[in-house]
Amino acid sequence: MMTKSPIAGPIFNQDSSEFFFTHTADEISGEAVDAYIDRLAHAGVGTFVSCGNAMRANYASEVWERDWHGYDPEGSDDQPVLKHIPVEQVRTFRQRLDSAKRLADMGVDFHARAFARCRHHGLGAWMTMRMNDVHGCMDQDSPLLSTFYKGQRAANQLRTQYRDTSWMDRALDWERPEVQEHYFKLVQEQLKRFDFDGLELDWMRFCYHFRPGREMAGGRVITDWMCRVRTACDAAAKSKGHPIMLGVRVPSRPETARKLGLDAVAWAKEGLIDLVVPTPFWATCEFDMPMQEWHRLIGGTKVQLAGGVEIRYQPVPNGPATMMTAELATGAALSVLHGGADQVYLFNYFPSGHGLTKDWGAETIDSVFRAMKDATAMAKLARRHAITYRDIRAPGEPLDNALPGSDLQADMPSPSGCAFRINTGPIPVGRIVELLLEFQQGGIDPSQLRVHVNSQQCAIKQSSDDGVAIYNVPCELMEDESQVVDVIGGGKNAFTIVRVEVSVSAA
Amino acid sequence: MMTKSPIAGPIFNQDSSEFFFTHTADEISGEAVDAYIDRLAHAGVGTFVSCGNAMRANYASEVWERDWHGYDPEGSDDQPVLKHIPVEQVRTFRQRLDSAKRLADMGVDFHARAFARCRHHGLGAWMTMRMNDVHGCMDQDSPLLSTFYKGQRAANQLRTQYRDTSWMDRALDWERPEVQEHYFKLVQEQLKRFDFDGLELDWMRFCYHFRPGREMAGGRVITDWMCRVRTACDAAAKSKGHPIMLGVRVPSRPETARKLGLDAVAWAKEGLIDLVVPTPFWATCEFDMPMQEWHRLIGGTKVQLAGGVEIRYQPVPNGPATMMTAELATGAALSVLHGGADQVYLFNYFPSGHGLTKDWGAETIDSVFRAMKDATAMAKLARRHAITYRDIRAPGEPLDNALPGSDLQADMPSPSGCAFRINTGPIPVGRIVELLLEFQQGGIDPSQLRVHVNSQQCAIKQSSDDGVAIYNVPCELMEDESQVVDVIGGGKNAFTIVRVEVSVSAA
Repeated sequence: MMTKSPIAGPIFNQDSSEFFFTHTADEISGEAVDAYIDRLAHAGVGTFVSCGNAMRANYASEVWERDWHGYDPEGSDDQPVLKHIPVEQVRTFRQRLDSAKRLADMGVDFHARAFARCRHHGLGAWMTMRMNDVHGCMDQDSPLLSTFYKGQRAANQLRTQYRDTSWMDRALDWERPEVQEHYFKLVQEQLKRFDFDGLELDWMRFCYHFRPGREMAGGRVITDWMCRVRTACDAAAKSKGHPIMLGVRVPSRPETARKLGLDAVAWAKEGLIDLVVPTPFWATCEFDMPMQEWHRLIGGTKVQLAGGVEIRYQPVPNGPATMMTAELATGAALSVLHGGADQVYLFNYFPSGHGLTKDWGAETIDSVFRAMKDATAMAKLARRHAITYRDIRAPGEPLDNALPGSDLQADMPSPSGCAFRINTGPIPVGRIVELLLEFQQGGIDPSQLRVHVNSQQCAIKQSSDDGVAIYNVPCELMEDESQVVDVIGGGKNAFTIVRVEVSVSAA
Repeated sequence: MMTKSPIAGPIFNQDSSEFFFTHTADEISGEAVDAYIDRLAHAGVGTFVSCGNAMRANYASEVWERDWHGYDPEGSDDQPVLKHIPVEQVRTFRQRLDSAKRLADMGVDFHARAFARCRHHGLGAWMTMRMNDVHGCMDQDSPLLSTFYKGQRAANQLRTQYRDTSWMDRALDWERPEVQEHYFKLVQEQLKRFDFDGLELDWMRFCYHFRPGREMAGGRVITDWMCRVRTACDAAAKSKGHPIMLGVRVPSRPETARKLGLDAVAWAKEGLIDLVVPTPFWATCEFDMPMQEWHRLIGGTKVQLAGGVEIRYQPVPNGPATMMTAELATGAALSVLHGGADQVYLFNYFPSGHGLTKDWGAETIDSVFRAMKDATAMAKLARRHAITYRDIRAPGEPLDNALPGSDLQADMPSPSGCAFRINTGPIPVGRIVELLLEFQQGGIDPSQLRVHVNSQQCAIKQSSDDGVAIYNVPCELMEDESQVVDVIGGGKNAFTIVRVEVSVSAA
């Protein structure tokens, strides 16, 4: 293999639809693509990762159906690919297809243009491929569905045959050779058609690629398939005259990844990949991904490690969720870098599409994204750490969410009370540190609870009627990497905690 | 460091009291020690690990109090060290102390004699030191408590000061230099006094060595302390003329161990240790210790890996428990070896003390222990795999027990139904394989449930009124390492499962 170039962070993943959702057919143009990349370059993005597919290609592919396949821009809302879509979504759907088609009709390929603009700004340019995207799979028809997929579905060849209750049950079965070939075609086209620094295989869309129980046997199939991709990348590198790296997005925990047939550690050791990105799926950013463990497991290889930071924040499974604030994103990203990752990897962090500009403001986007290049810069910003849960488990892996937490007496040998461990990155010095606890019950008097951080009781600063209490944490109490919060109530002071955050003021 | 000798398995840990509990003062003698080792040698034990202490030494130590310190064999049951012991236990306590003292008075040192007999049989001979044993800590006085411990307790210098509800709260705080010195004295004595192949530091008695939240900072203290021990071992090796290995018992999960300050992976990489033994604490044998992950994490070092197999079987935390059967022990041990461990490590598997001879029979002990030398021999025996839980977590680590399991609809993206993953070792060929499910409710009709192994429905073989159902698992369905069991009921067939086992017939 050729020498690896270091990958510049933060790494920014764009999905296959955002650009087309946020530009009408009238607005779309090659210059609009340039402007899109210009915005990211201005914000300090180090590497742009461009997504070309879900079940279809969003560019004028010659080997896969295009997003606008079977769609007639002049036709009615009742045409086959639209008629199963909820009425209120039809207009948005059509706009996206109109825009994508218009750009292609102009002779502009989004990715080729975006990569050229990345070169202009000195940004890293990567392609990402979603390996089993099932958006739209519950619909009978939709522009999201490929003929290939519908064929697999009609032939009862999807992942789960004995149950059909979730999107995941309707994923393609990667043990099927025709599935492997279907994706390999797209790999070959993209290696030939585009000039990028790296190709990412996004196994996290949607994570489940095999019949339940067949994951580890199936994983060997994926590994063999990836050997072919690696060979194809190396061949393309020769013709392009520069290395072409190979990356993977995989579940946040190494053993979960292995048990899902996505054994990134083995791939790293076998020299198949250059970048591994442990990441949650979607439901929530995961604040305690074991980056230290990943770092150790791929130690001794040349593989780089990036930590996936998602846009959604949901402390309790199925509980209330918000978008990540700038402070929360800073906290999550800092923990990732402090844990040994080489880069922060942003997923679904669109300046416009998901309202980040509205929520954060353009200047905040710039300052946070720019700081994500390195831990020292990040550590100067105001940040907020939280406890969430991991939203991907291998079949049969037990639940392990920390929240909600209550003060039921735990049994020997576990400590009693209600303890949490919260990841916080490097030790802050001379900052204001506060602990936030949100209680499910309105009737709790937080001043009656004993709240400890690393064994020392912390005084309450304020509490509000909506069950949120803030405690002062003397900065000197803070440990490296993580803190233990131990809340003792008991008796009349029974409680259930649904949110735990530690905030650190800016330097 | 000197060259490592391979360690012979299975490794058998003896606690500091069993021999004295099971021999009266009249029966005890040097020959009785020989006979004890002879029995283990006959059973095929590869390495004997002899325990010299809990809070006191069970031999005539010159640097620690002896078990019989402060005890007057001629005195009444009301003497200080006995008067806080429950009346029904006094006789057993006295017998143990009488025996230990008698053996020492005869001029026989249990460990020296045992090690000599190990040499005679070609068994490996190790010493194990319990690093923070708190047996007796809830008593005001007891022969189990050392003056040193009582001093720490009186000075409010134990691990947890803000809470006092469990044994673990009353552990010594290893950040205290006097604690470190107290144990180092014993290390020095044992290195000088005995001639063994290796010294094991048993950090699993009782696992919690620091104030909650101080574990990772504290871990650096332990690492420094272990450097001193390593140096002392190397010095002793020179004078004894053979290598002296250093081993550790640590929590079953690498990240849990690290977060408890017991970073065995770091110790392995730094060349401080020769053997690492991931293990549960006590409540239950753990059937899914991540040996593959341990194996990877210490890969590239010369450190050997053994998996701890405990004697207690408890599927549900705080639920019913039994002793391990021979079939269960075989299943657990086979998974350990199949997962990449070099040896099986038996803890609390006393032929007599805990009734193993009565429960298993002498011949079964022999055949199972002998087979534990290697996976091929084990795989020929009848075996039973189970789902349990891990009984040690770092403060703040969330619960993750698989049982009880119920058929509440899990949410996207998790598969619905009730899925379990059960470790089963190598693929059995041509065997009878059965799945056992125990339901909490008596009223369940198991024939109404759909039970799948690796996505294929399995037929019910039998069910009984006490809620236990057996399903036939076609042997061809079995995968390497683990199986996914997915049970679908729903509606009127709601269920809660409290026990899951897979049995494999003998070859």
